[in-house]
Amino acid sequence: MSSASPGGRTPSALSPVIAVDAMGGDHAPHEIVKGAVRAVREHGLRLVLVGRTPEIASLLTEEDAGREIPIVHADDTLAMHEGALASWRRPRSSVAVACKLIRQGDAAALVSAGSTGGVVATSTVRLRTQSGVLRPALALVLPTRPVPTILLDAGANADAKPEMLVQFAHLGAAYAQTAHGVAEPRVGILTIGSEPGKGNKLARKAAELLTATAAGPPKLDFRGNIEGHDLLAGLVDVVVTDGFTGNVALKSVEGAVRFAFDEIRGALTANPLSKAGALLHRKPLRELRERLDSESYGGAVLLGLNGTAVIAHGDSHARGVERACLLAHELASGRIVDQVRRRVTATNRSPTWLHRLGQGEE
Amino acid sequence: MSSASPGGRTPSALSPVIAVDAMGGDHAPHEIVKGAVRAVREHGLRLVLVGRTPEIASLLTEEDAGREIPIVHADDTLAMHEGALASWRRPRSSVAVACKLIRQGDAAALVSAGSTGGVVATSTVRLRTQSGVLRPALALVLPTRPVPTILLDAGANADAKPEMLVQFAHLGAAYAQTAHGVAEPRVGILTIGSEPGKGNKLARKAAELLTATAAGPPKLDFRGNIEGHDLLAGLVDVVVTDGFTGNVALKSVEGAVRFAFDEIRGALTANPLSKAGALLHRKPLRELRERLDSESYGGAVLLGLNGTAVIAHGDSHARGVERACLLAHELASGRIVDQVRRRVTATNRSPTWLHRLGQGEE
Repeated sequence: MSSASPGGRTPSALSPVIAVDAMGGDHAPHEIVKGAVRAVREHGLRLVLVGRTPEIASLLTEEDAGREIPIVHADDTLAMHEGALASWRRPRSSVAVACKLIRQGDAAALVSAGSTGGVVATSTVRLRTQSGVLRPALALVLPTRPVPTILLDAGANADAKPEMLVQFAHLGAAYAQTAHGVAEPRVGILTIGSEPGKGNKLARKAAELLTATAAGPPKLDFRGNIEGHDLLAGLVDVVVTDGFTGNVALKSVEGAVRFAFDEIRGALTANPLSKAGALLHRKPLRELRERLDSESYGGAVLLGLNGTAVIAHGDSHARGVERACLLAHELASGRIVDQVRRRVTATNRSPTWLHRLGQGEE
Repeated sequence: MSSASPGGRTPSALSPVIAVDAMGGDHAPHEIVKGAVRAVREHGLRLVLVGRTPEIASLLTEEDAGREIPIVHADDTLAMHEGALASWRRPRSSVAVACKLIRQGDAAALVSAGSTGGVVATSTVRLRTQSGVLRPALALVLPTRPVPTILLDAGANADAKPEMLVQFAHLGAAYAQTAHGVAEPRVGILTIGSEPGKGNKLARKAAELLTATAAGPPKLDFRGNIEGHDLLAGLVDVVVTDGFTGNVALKSVEGAVRFAFDEIRGALTANPLSKAGALLHRKPLRELRERLDSESYGGAVLLGLNGTAVIAHGDSHARGVERACLLAHELASGRIVDQVRRRVTATNRSPTWLHRLGQGEE
């Protein structure tokens, strides 16, 4: 990640304001407030905490940070188990109030560790889709090296159209440029088989359309098919897919990594000799596990709205919240919303695109 | 796996004959012939080797097994890189000749380590889909414990209909009963979200239809949604999905397991102390890796045809071929084709099913 920190404890007046949902997440509000204080003190970010004032104020006092972060009151919260429908009926939830701050121009992005479904639904309704964007997409970062790979859509749209996948490519490219400093992001499409023409109807049509529009404007470095086993190989900077496939693939990766660790733990402690050896590695293995967990599932980004929502893992502790705030800051500072607008506007003017839309296939 | 071995070196005259494609795979024909000899000597299977007679005969002589396995000659072979289209235009390929043996009643199943696409295409065209079956499906076994989980479709049908997924559930249940000895296989559907009604249109409709027809006949123990992270948790015996999602999920699992191993190897050898410890575990880690590799990707089974095709990994050595022969033997001995026919015939008579087909949604 590029360094966004001005390196001091004093927030810069030019820095965008991030609205942090203090009430969402398994460890809210205490870990959220702790993470926010860290983000302010260690990275000089400008934050607002949104939620129930008395609770937040007392936690800030505990951290001796009563004057460092302003609070905006919200009566209500989204419950972690609440479905999308229920959640966007709550106009006074902390997420809804955070969105209001963005709409009013008082904040540029929001961070929440609340339920993904609830945050996606609330911010989609309250921030609205950017003009020209067919659908917002949820982007997740895979722990590839040296540069992380962004996968989208990770679950916002279970049923998608080929044109949406083309836009997702541009949303993802804007993310890679802004947050990972990649000048010309390489984009692949998740499908089955490595040759062109492989996949289901959706992937085949989307790949055709990506090929046809890659020359731009805006230019896109489209690298063709990516198979499941190459998701973590770091072959491209952005992988596009529909929200159903993306969510299944991400969770399969998550489950398989967990499974491999459990099996390896079993193998390493299977006999006394290897048990002795296992003690020698406890630390590197724990560090590795943390890296995989936090990097791959620490923060999903909802792209394509008039404002950026970073959704931290529900289980986030202070460090995860701090990272989510940093990511939101980087995306907002890099004006990702404007970048997406420029890309989408240019795409929508391309002859191939217009021709396609003219055929009524949208 | 239930024991199919009569425990002797003499093949039983009642045992079904398995036609083994001697020419398919990265290590064909030598490792294929070796594996076949083992399957005959150690498990008493009845095999026929199909391919170029001179090569096979000389390899059998090397193994001192010239009289143990008959050879059926085939001039041609499917190349590993060949696409589906090219491959089923070859009527004299070893896979095509193996299919001919099945059609004539001279063999009950075939084993090939050739390219999956080529074997699927050839056997689908030459064995034909069983009456009442909408589409054959490719089933793969995941290395869950204590009982393996069967996932299908793993890639035969990139675009599927809800009714196909219901049939896949029955194909998978027949597989679990025959090969894993599960009396009442638990079936789940791969989707996103754990509550009913989650997923894309296909998964939602398929789940509805599975719920509506679960009471039977034939009865199906439908357990609802399975998410990607639970694929390896062993919650059910059979997971159904379309071939696109299934293939992406399987390859994502495969890639993630490989990634986890590589990262762990890196972590274990990061400093001299842990390097010393790593030496203590070389063996358990290698064994674990082998188990995951061979069990999960050792043999895909194409179900729903008039005959069973077991597709071993292209990289199979003798042991993989031996295992694939055993699996083919178990499925053929358990008359899986008849079991599928009974299940599908019963399903096709169910009122819910007829009503649905009557709506023209197939």
